[in-house]
Amino acid sequence: MTEVTITNMLTVELVDHMGDDHAIAQAARVSTIGAQYQDIDEVADGRLISYLMRDRHASPFEHCVMKFRITCPLFTGRQILRHRTNSYNEESGRYREMEPLFYVPPPERPLVQIGKPGHYTFELGTQEQHELTLHSLVRAYSAAWREYQFMLSKGIAREVARAALPSGLFSTMYMTAKLRNAFQFVALRIHDAEADVVSHPQWEIEQVARQMDDFIKELFPDAWTAWVANGRPSL
Amino acid sequence: MTEVTITNMLTVELVDHMGDDHAIAQAARVSTIGAQYQDIDEVADGRLISYLMRDRHASPFEHCVMKFRITCPLFTGRQILRHRTNSYNEESGRYREMEPLFYVPPPERPLVQIGKPGHYTFELGTQEQHELTLHSLVRAYSAAWREYQFMLSKGIAREVARAALPSGLFSTMYMTAKLRNAFQFVALRIHDAEADVVSHPQWEIEQVARQMDDFIKELFPDAWTAWVANGRPSL
Amino acid sequence: MTEVTITNMLTVELVDHMGDDHAIAQAARVSTIGAQYQDIDEVADGRLISYLMRDRHASPFEHCVMKFRITCPLFTGRQILRHRTNSYNEESGRYREMEPLFYVPPPERPLVQIGKPGHYTFELGTQEQHELTLHSLVRAYSAAWREYQFMLSKGIAREVARAALPSGLFSTMYMTAKLRNAFQFVALRIHDAEADVVSHPQWEIEQVARQMDDFIKELFPDAWTAWVANGRPSL
Amino acid sequence: MTEVTITNMLTVELVDHMGDDHAIAQAARVSTIGAQYQDIDEVADGRLISYLMRDRHASPFEHCVMKFRITCPLFTGRQILRHRTNSYNEESGRYREMEPLFYVPPPERPLVQIGKPGHYTFELGTQEQHELTLHSLVRAYSAAWREYQFMLSKGIAREVARAALPSGLFSTMYMTAKLRNAFQFVALRIHDAEADVVSHPQWEIEQVARQMDDFIKELFPDAWTAWVANGRPSL
Repeated sequence: MTEVTITNMLTVELVDHMGDDHAIAQAARVSTIGAQYQDIDEVADGRLISYLMRDRHASPFEHCVMKFRITCPLFTGRQILRHRTNSYNEESGRYREMEPLFYVPPPERPLVQIGKPGHYTFELGTQEQHELTLHSLVRAYSAAWREYQFMLSKGIAREVARAALPSGLFSTMYMTAKLRNAFQFVALRIHDAEADVVSHPQWEIEQVARQMDDFIKELFPDAWTAWVANGRPSL
Repeated sequence: MTEVTITNMLTVELVDHMGDDHAIAQAARVSTIGAQYQDIDEVADGRLISYLMRDRHASPFEHCVMKFRITCPLFTGRQILRHRTNSYNEESGRYREMEPLFYVPPPERPLVQIGKPGHYTFELGTQEQHELTLHSLVRAYSAAWREYQFMLSKGIAREVARAALPSGLFSTMYMTAKLRNAFQFVALRIHDAEADVVSHPQWEIEQVARQMDDFIKELFPDAWTAWVANGRPSL
Repeated sequence: MTEVTITNMLTVELVDHMGDDHAIAQAARVSTIGAQYQDIDEVADGRLISYLMRDRHASPFEHCVMKFRITCPLFTGRQILRHRTNSYNEESGRYREMEPLFYVPPPERPLVQIGKPGHYTFELGTQEQHELTLHSLVRAYSAAWREYQFMLSKGIAREVARAALPSGLFSTMYMTAKLRNAFQFVALRIHDAEADVVSHPQWEIEQVARQMDDFIKELFPDAWTAWVANGRPSL
Repeated sequence: MTEVTITNMLTVELVDHMGDDHAIAQAARVSTIGAQYQDIDEVADGRLISYLMRDRHASPFEHCVMKFRITCPLFTGRQILRHRTNSYNEESGRYREMEPLFYVPPPERPLVQIGKPGHYTFELGTQEQHELTLHSLVRAYSAAWREYQFMLSKGIAREVARAALPSGLFSTMYMTAKLRNAFQFVALRIHDAEADVVSHPQWEIEQVARQMDDFIKELFPDAWTAWVANGRPSL
C-alpha cells in the first residue's frame, strides 16, 4: 500500500546536558584566581556572566553542553547540519527502510514569498493556497512512496530506492552542542526584529530553534538573559 | 510541463588551490630550523613528507588547500556536508527555482544489497532490475516535479514547494578543504580492500571521492604516495 | 622575596561529565531504528560499540563529554592547546599576578635524549645530571621571579613583567573534551609501543594524558576496551 | 657564553594565499545561480560582498585562505594558538636548540596598567620605568639562557632544559587561516574604540593583528571595506 502519514510537528527533546550557569563562571574565573577553589556565589556568577557576554568572551560558554533529539524533515535536517561545530548522528536511509512520515505546513505557516534575495518578506496566503499545498504535497509524497516500496519489493537496495524520497520526509537525529554554539544556532535560526543582526531563517528550522531556545533559557537562565540583553549575538 | 532530465554523472571540478608538496615540507621544517629560510630540495622534501605521514604528523598537511565545485544529488550532498572541517556554499532551494535534473544509477552501479548492517555486500542486479529502477525513479521524479511546478504557479514559496522534491535532485556546491581533511574525506569515502581500515561508502559519494583523489595525486604527488604507502589513513 | 616553590606533580581532576557507554550506543542506533525508543541492553551496547570502534565510526563517540581541571607547566599547557577541538579557559598572566610554583623533573623522568629528529630515545641520566638540572632550574626560576617581582613593585603591568617568567611556571586550566577527541588526545600523547601508530610525546604531557586515560576507562569502560583492542587509534 | 639578543619587532610575512574578492562572490552566488557559470563583474561582486557582510552570511568568506609566517614571543604565540580554526606549525623546543632572541617592549609600548579586570586602561609610563623594564628583562633572560646552555652542555635534553626559558623568547610559526577566521582574529586582537564590540588585546598581539589586517585590506579590498563599514565584527 502507498498510504503516507503527514504531520506539521517538528520536535526537539532534551536528552542530557552538562553544566549550569555556575559552570560558566567557574571556567571564566580561572583566569583571575588560578588554582584556588571558589565557593558558589550566585550573585557574583550572574554579574560575571553578564560581563562575559557584553565583551563577547565566548570561551567560558563552551564548558556547558546539551544533547538533543530532533525529528524534522530532511530539508530542515540539511540546514541543521550546516552548523558544523556540533556533533550529529542521524537516521540512515542506507541502513534502514524509512517510515512514511512527511511534512505539510500548518495553517499558521506563511506560504507566499514577496521580494527578492536579501529582501524577502512572507505573507500567510489564502485558505485556498493552504489547501492546494496540502493536496499537492500529499500527491507527491504518495507517488514517491509508491515507487520506493515498489523498488524495495523488487530487491533494490534502500540506498538506491531512497533517491525517490522527497525532502519533506521526516527523520530523527541526535545533536550535541556546546552552549556557545547553541547560542550561535538560535541567533542565526530565530527571526527577531530587535536582534542586533536580524536573521531570516526558514520557518521550519525556526520551530526547531525556538524549542532549543526554551531549553537554554531553562537550563542557563543567567547566560540566556545576558545573551538577550546583548542583542542575541552569534557568539 | 513536467519533463525531467536524468543523468548518472556526478562531477568534481578543481576551481583553485594553494600550495604543493614543498609547502608541506616548509611548514613542517619550521619545527627544526625555526626562523631560518630554506632552499627547495625536492629529495629532502619527499623524505620528510614520507616520515610525517608514517608518524601521522598531520598538521603540516593543513597548509595546502583545494577549492572544488561539485555537482551531485541531494542525498550525496548531505553525506558530503557531514565532513565538518571543510567550507561549503550550496545552491539554495530557498533563493532560486531548482532545475529539473535528477539522478539515475548507471549500468555499473550495483543495485542489490546483501547482508545486514556492518556486513553489507552489493551485487550488480539483473538487467530487469536496472530497467525498473530507472522507470520507477523517473515516475517519482516526474510526479514530484509536476507538483513543484504546480505549487509555484499558484504563488507558493519555493522553500515550501521544494518539500516535494526528491533526494535524487541535483544541486551544485563549492567545497574548500585543507589537504589533511581532503585525505580524511577520500579515506572514508573510497572503498579500498587494501586500506588499513576499510570504508564502505555509498557508491555515489565514492564517485565524488575518486575525482578528488585524482586531484590530490596530481597536485601533491609526494604526499599522496606517502598516504597510499601508509594504508590510506584517515588523518 | 624571591623564594620559589617547586613541584613535579601535574594534576588532572574530573570536574564534570555527560554520558556513558549507553549514550554512545543510543546515538549510533538512531541510524537503524530512527524515531523508535530503545531499552537499555548492556550486552548489545557493548557489541555495537565494539563494531563502531573497529570500523572507525567515530561520530557516536562525540555525544559524551568530560570537563577537566589541569594544573601543569606552561610548556605542557602549550602542547595541550594544540588539540583544537577542545574548549579551554586558562589562568591569565594579564589578569592576575602569577604564583611562584615551578616544575622540576622527578627522579624517574629520563633526562638524556639520544638520536635525531624522528628517531629519539631517552635514557634516565645519572644522579649527578638530575641534581644539576634541579639546581640549574631553581636558579633560573629564582632569578626570573626576582625580576618579575621587581618590575611589579615599580608599577609595571603584569602582562609586561611576565615576559620574564619561565616555561616551567605552573598554571591552571579547564578543558572540556568530547570523548572522541579525548581518545585522540590520549592516542597522540601516550607512548605505547603496542599501538598501531606509536606516539612520542614529551614525558610531562604523557603524565596528563595517563590521568585522562584513567578517567576514560572508568567512565566509558566498553568504549575504552574497544579502543585499546583496536590499537589505540587517533579517532 | 650567556649573551642574549633583544628585539621589539614582531613580524608577519604573507607566504601564500588563495582567492580574491571575486572568489567570495563566486561561492556566494551558487545559492542563486546553481550550476550556471558567471562572468566576472566587479561592481556586482562588490555589492554582493557588502550585502553578505551586512547580514553576516559568513560562509562565502571561507573560500579564501592566507598562509602567514609569524615571528613573536612565546607569550604572544600562546594567544595566537587560542584561535583554533586556523592551522599551525611552530618551531619546537624539543627538536632544536632555541636561539637567544628575546622580546623587550619598545618606547611606545604602554607599561602601566590602571583599573581592574574588565576595565583596564594603560598609560605609557615614565622613562625610568622603561629603562628598568629593559634592564630587568635582560637580567632575567641572561640568567635563564646561562642555565639553559649549562644544562645542554651537561647532556640534558633540550625539552627539559627549555623549562628555564622565559615567555619573552622568540619563536617562528606558520599559520594558515581562512579569510572568515582571519577577520575574527583581527576583530578580537585589534583595539578600535569605534568597533561595535570593543576588544582589549595585549599590545604585542595587536602588532601581529595589524600586520594581518594590512594583508587582508590589500588582498581582499571589497571584503575588508565591507567589514570595516559593519563595525569590524567577529564573524
